[in-house]
Order: sequence, then C-alpha cells, then structure tokens
Amino acid sequence: MSRTTLIHAGWIIPMSDEPVVLRNQVLVLKDHQIDAIVTPEQAQDMIADEVLQLPNHVLMPGLVNLHGHSAMTLLRGFADDLDLMDWLNNHIWPAEGKHVSDEFVYDGSVLAMAEMLLGGTTTINDMYFYHDAVARAGLKTGMRTMVGCSILEFPTNYAQNADEYISKSLQDAQAYQNEELINFVWAPHAPYTVSDETFKRVVALAEEHDWLIHCHIHETAFEVEDSVKQHGKRPLQRLDELGVLSPRLIAAHMVHTNEEEMALVAKRGISIAHNPASNMKLASGFAPIQAMLDAGVNVGLGTDGAASNNKLDMFADMRLGALIAKGSTRKPTDVKAYDMLKMATINGAKALHLDDKVGTLQAGKQADMIAVDLSALATQPVFDPISHLVYAADRSQVSHVWINGEHLVAEGELTRLNQADLLANAQHWQQKIAAG
Amino acid sequence: MSRTTLIHAGWIIPMSDEPVVLRNQVLVLKDHQIDAIVTPEQAQDMIADEVLQLPNHVLMPGLVNLHGHSAMTLLRGFADDLDLMDWLNNHIWPAEGKHVSDEFVYDGSVLAMAEMLLGGTTTINDMYFYHDAVARAGLKTGMRTMVGCSILEFPTNYAQNADEYISKSLQDAQAYQNEELINFVWAPHAPYTVSDETFKRVVALAEEHDWLIHCHIHETAFEVEDSVKQHGKRPLQRLDELGVLSPRLIAAHMVHTNEEEMALVAKRGISIAHNPASNMKLASGFAPIQAMLDAGVNVGLGTDGAASNNKLDMFADMRLGALIAKGSTRKPTDVKAYDMLKMATINGAKALHLDDKVGTLQAGKQADMIAVDLSALATQPVFDPISHLVYAADRSQVSHVWINGEHLVAEGELTRLNQADLLANAQHWQQKIAAG
Repeated sequence: MSRTTLIHAGWIIPMSDEPVVLRNQVLVLKDHQIDAIVTPEQAQDMIADEVLQLPNHVLMPGLVNLHGHSAMTLLRGFADDLDLMDWLNNHIWPAEGKHVSDEFVYDGSVLAMAEMLLGGTTTINDMYFYHDAVARAGLKTGMRTMVGCSILEFPTNYAQNADEYISKSLQDAQAYQNEELINFVWAPHAPYTVSDETFKRVVALAEEHDWLIHCHIHETAFEVEDSVKQHGKRPLQRLDELGVLSPRLIAAHMVHTNEEEMALVAKRGISIAHNPASNMKLASGFAPIQAMLDAGVNVGLGTDGAASNNKLDMFADMRLGALIAKGSTRKPTDVKAYDMLKMATINGAKALHLDDKVGTLQAGKQADMIAVDLSALATQPVFDPISHLVYAADRSQVSHVWINGEHLVAEGELTRLNQADLLANAQHWQQKIAAG
Repeated sequence: MSRTTLIHAGWIIPMSDEPVVLRNQVLVLKDHQIDAIVTPEQAQDMIADEVLQLPNHVLMPGLVNLHGHSAMTLLRGFADDLDLMDWLNNHIWPAEGKHVSDEFVYDGSVLAMAEMLLGGTTTINDMYFYHDAVARAGLKTGMRTMVGCSILEFPTNYAQNADEYISKSLQDAQAYQNEELINFVWAPHAPYTVSDETFKRVVALAEEHDWLIHCHIHETAFEVEDSVKQHGKRPLQRLDELGVLSPRLIAAHMVHTNEEEMALVAKRGISIAHNPASNMKLASGFAPIQAMLDAGVNVGLGTDGAASNNKLDMFADMRLGALIAKGSTRKPTDVKAYDMLKMATINGAKALHLDDKVGTLQAGKQADMIAVDLSALATQPVFDPISHLVYAADRSQVSHVWINGEHLVAEGELTRLNQADLLANAQHWQQKIAAG
C-alpha cells in the first residue's frame, strides 16, 4: 500500500549544481521517496491520498547541520562572553561533570532536535557522549542522526580512556544497525586530546566498520601553535601522516588553514564543517570559505552546540556565514547566496556520504524536504527566492518538514512531539542545573 | 479619562546602566506613559482597565534602529553578491531612478515599518527622499520616525541640487511640527556627495531649526582614501573643520576609524550608528565597536536598508554585531550581550536626543516597549534572559509592541495594519519593478 502526496509549491529549488528555480510545479511524494517533479497539468491526472497547496512557499531539501553537540542545549546561555579557557574550565566542564548522564543527553538531544526540526534541519551530524541516548533521541524525534562517538584520552562521565570510549561506542551502535535514519560515526575529539596511537586505531576501525570520522581540527590559532611546539608540525600534517585524512573525514572548523593545507584537504577529499557562529562567539577567527570552495573542497555548514552559538538555526548561520565570508575578505562577491545554500544542503549530504539518499530534490531520493513560507512581510517582495532564503528569511518561516517522507512539521507545528512536554522538561533541567 | 494597563511580566529589563533583571514584576502603563514598576502584591490593589499576563516574557524598551532607508524594502533581494559600484551603478541606482516616487516611498516605508514593528523596533532613524511620504508612513504605522532629509549635490527623482533638497525638506516638515512621533533630521548623504558649502549650511540650519544631522561617514576604505586625495585629509577631519562634529551628529558606519579619530568622536560627543549586516554584505569592513565603547563613544545599532542587509531585524543584527565584534578582534569578551542590548535601546535613544522620552523602562517615560516570549524551545532553558535576547531569540518571539503607549502588536499580530493588504501591495510593486 503506497501513499502519494502531491505538493504544489510556488517555487521548487532542487539544489542542482547550478541555480535552478522551478515556478509553480508539483512534487510527487510516494511513501518515503520523491517520485517526480511534474507540472500542475500533469498532476491533475494523478491519484493522490493528499494534496498540499503551498503557493507562497519554497520547497527545497532539508538542511544538513554538519557539526553539533545536541545535548548542550541544556547549557544554552549558561555562560557567555568569556575567554575560552575560563569558559571551559570554570563553567562548561564543571557543569558537564556534574550533570551529563544518559538522561541529560537524551533530554538535551530531543530538545535540540525539536528546535532544529522547527527550523528546517533534517540531518544532524552530532558529536557527544552517551550514544544510545543520542540515537534514542533521533528515533523519538524522527531526525536523521549521525551519532558521533567522542573519543578522548581523558575521562568524562561517560568513559575513562580511549579504549572504553571505543568499546562503548561499538556496543551502543549494535542496536541501531537496521535503523535507516541512525548512523554511527567515530569522533576522535581533536588533535590535542587524542594520541597518535588512538588516531591510527580509529582509522582502522573506520575501515572495518565502514564508519565516517568527525573531528575538530584547526579550530584555534593556539591549537596549531601548540601542535608545532609538541609535535614539530601542524595538526593537519600530523593527521595526514597518521592516515586520518580521507573522504571519510569531516573536519569541523578548519579556521586556520593556509593555501598548502587547502590543496591537501582538496586532494585527500576531506569535507569541512564550517561553524561561523561558534567561530565568532569564541573568537576563533574567520575560516577562508571562498578560498576553500575555489580549491575544490567540499564545505558544509554547522551550528556547533548551543553553549557556543547559542541557537541551532541554520537560517541564521547561512546568513552569518555568507556575510562574514564577504566581510573578512573585503570581497562582496564571495560566498554567493546559492553557494551557501549548497553548503547547507547537498554539500553536507556529500560530507556524510548521504548524497545518494538526500541533499537534493530528485526522483528516487528519500524525501528530506522543507517548505519555507515567503509570504511574511520580511520576505516581500520576492525577486529571487534564493537570496531570501539566505539573507532575509527567518527559521520561523519554515512551515513544513519531511524526513524520509514523514511529515514531522506541519503548518509550523511539530506533529510527533508535544511542545508543552518539551518545555516543561527544559524547565526541570534549568532548575536542576541552576541549583548547582 | 486615563487608561491603566497592568502588565505582569516574567522578566522586566529596564535597561539601566548596569544589567538589572526584575523577576515577576508588574509594569503599570497609564495612557502614553510608564507610571511605575511594582510588585504583584502592590498591583493587587490597583484598579486597571486591562491586565496582561506575560509570565514567559521579557518586557523591555523597544529597539531603536539607528540607521535605515525604509523605502528600500521594495528593492529587497533585487541585486546581491555584487561589487559595490556594480551594485549601485548597474542595479540599485537605475531601479531607483525608474521607480522612486512619493508612492514608492510611502508603500515601501509602510512595509518596512510593519516588518520592524513585528520584530520589536519602535524607533527608526530613516534617511531617504520624499519626506512627506516617510512621515505619512510613520503616522500610518504608529512608528516613532526620524525623517532623515537627504541632501546631495546631484539630482535624483526628488530634487535637483542641494538648494532644492533643503527647501523641500523645510516645506515637508511644516505639516508635522506638532506630531509627537515624527521628527525631521538633516541627512547630508556623505562627505563624498556633499560640498563644504552645503555642510556649513546644514550646520547652520540644524542650529536654527534644532534638528539633528545624520550622515554616512567612513563607510569604506575607498571613501577615506579618496578624500585624502581630493581634500588632503580624511573625511572626519574635514567635517570637523566644517563644524559638523557635534552631539547633533549621528555618523552612520564609521568602519574605518583610527584611535585618534575615536578620541575626537568621543570628545565631540558624536553618536555612531553601527550597521554590521550592511558592513559585511557590502564588504566594507569591521567597525572597531569595543574600542569605540572603551573610548566613551555612544554607539547604537542600525540595520541599514533592505537592499544591503536584507532583513530589518534588530534581533538578528544584535547577534551579528556581538559575534563579529569578537571575531574581528579575537577577543571573546568584547561587546558583551548587555552592551549590545544597550546599543539597540538606550544608546540609540541618546543618539536621537530621545533618551528623556524613551530607551529605558522608567516611570515618567513614554511607553515604547516590547515583550519577547522566551517559551519557544529555541530559548530554553533560561539561565540568563539577557544572553537569550542577543544570542538566541528570534524576532518572531516578539509578541507585544507598544509605541507611546499604543498597543501596535498584540500576540504577534499587527493591530492597526492589515497584513494581507501590505502583502498585496508588495506584490504589486514586485511585478512593476520586475517588469523593468
């Protein structure tokens, strides 16, 4: 029994290589998949279970958040405007040490995923602890979830050492092997928290289990300098020698990247997760995004966690990323709107090796899609919907969200989750965390 | 017959010099004015015409948009991602030449003001042409409007030369002398478009009519270099010699400002309108905001016009301004959330010489206020509402807006204006402009 929905949209932006905007066309959704894009005339003869009229809306692929720590929503606004080490040592790490648990991660991740769904994000490339909790949150919310399994050499609430992080990850992953929307990813935390030996082991395990690798790399100038002191080389070079640089790798940040490194990144087929909000808030610096794109690097967009952003809002960060790309190079033609829209959709899907399934609106792909209502005064008039999606639209204009064909946000409301329950739960954590 | 409204708010942020957050208090609104802030116990004995319960909301002063060109909403997204001179010469100026008229300015300004109202802006420091149209739009929407009367040495649709710009401004202003919410301001466009003689005349006219002066200054590096070539001095020095630098002046941009100039700006008591989105989108550069604040300069926040931003969203630009201030100096402690909130409220009011009337929530002031609903998932949990207002909240969370005591947005809806009419009107202009 297949179910067919006809979605009449004012604009369809399939996210093909070159900018294409289809005016007043109809997307045919059959069960989990995009079946076709047809004209209204062609649609008239079709038998459908449901017909949706979205005349003022853009229909486009869902947004892929390429770097986040979902559970940290519970620490949103807990500490701001501080020096990085003060922020970590005296605020974030003590709070995490006190509160992070399976329950914290599940509740925080569900809150994050609900926020992201409402804002048009359909895939999250997460990195945290208590992986079973993250995966359960993905199943609960319907979010397409990459469960990044953090690996460090030092203990946290979750594990004591690299061995234990790894063995727990493998164990947590077992129950989700047949879940279409849940994938596990190795997440060695960063070059400065993971040993050579562990990196080598992660590379072997990634091959063995066919997992991707997600790692913070070249986030701060300090990290790079420190590596030169300790290892006599920059982190990227060290990772290259350890075999980490491959198309399996999503390198988060890469703020401090010279030309030679860009060429290496392109050659090795690494993807980069750009996090403009976090890079500004923690004052890490400006990643050279246009130069990376010019070098042929696949660059996606991430929000990072809510403790350093503080909103999981891909619309806000598409705008921010496109704006600071121009400001930092003094070139107003850098990172054009469509390039940024690709970063937030198909580039993210490519980075996650999901581009055969999602990232564009094409027949045969799984239906991860969003509708954005441009009839708000803030996006009027409409000369170019691509411009509005990046520079003018708010996430509150996301009216409909589908993941793998399931209609998870309809008319701006969550269909699966109870918003009042989520609010009450967030307030429960607030009291608990504020009490110390 | 006075009318009293009691507003019970979860948080009241009066915007005093130091951060103060009042929890669960009641603001007493009497006609146009804030009468008092009292405890719920004190409020129990009061007789009121209306009682408003806003338990999940922050009540705070309305936002002051210190630099804008409202009518340009009609060119939102018309041309993007271009070099400045290409953008101006080949897109914006031809479109303005073709379309700008009293009707264009009125319709565009009403659209802008409606967008701004919905996003919590209660004062706009505007700068454009067809001043009667801007003033009528202010009266129509209820927006507190500074009508900036552009002066240039070259012709536009509105006037032929400086003389005519000036005489038309004086004429347009006459009808609005007794309007509480409408003020006229001289707006010599920029040092590179206005002669020494005209600047001197503007200074004299400002004294004579007690008007403020609003001018684009040091927006681009090119402007500064060009002035050195033409006049042998940087624009700020030239303006100082012409007597323009005084507490009457709102200098928009001041991106390129050295330490000596910051000291001069502070000494002369000039206010600065910082426009982070426009400075990034046009790649003008990073204004040294923390350094200016440290030098004692009064800095407010502006969106600039919708052709170069493209959203008139003070929430988005509070976040953007606070983020790029840190990124550009590599200091995460620069421009803290409360400093940005001051920029967007009381500093703007000071710049406009309106701080005796608005800009803080204090007994005796006119009630320009907004309520922001923090119960959205995106602003949960709430450890610090000040952080959320700058880093996490969307303008769509603005639920209530009052200007001079009039309730212009209630439960997120415009009370005076018909949104469907505004939408239809924007679409009428879109067709007209797109047709060429």
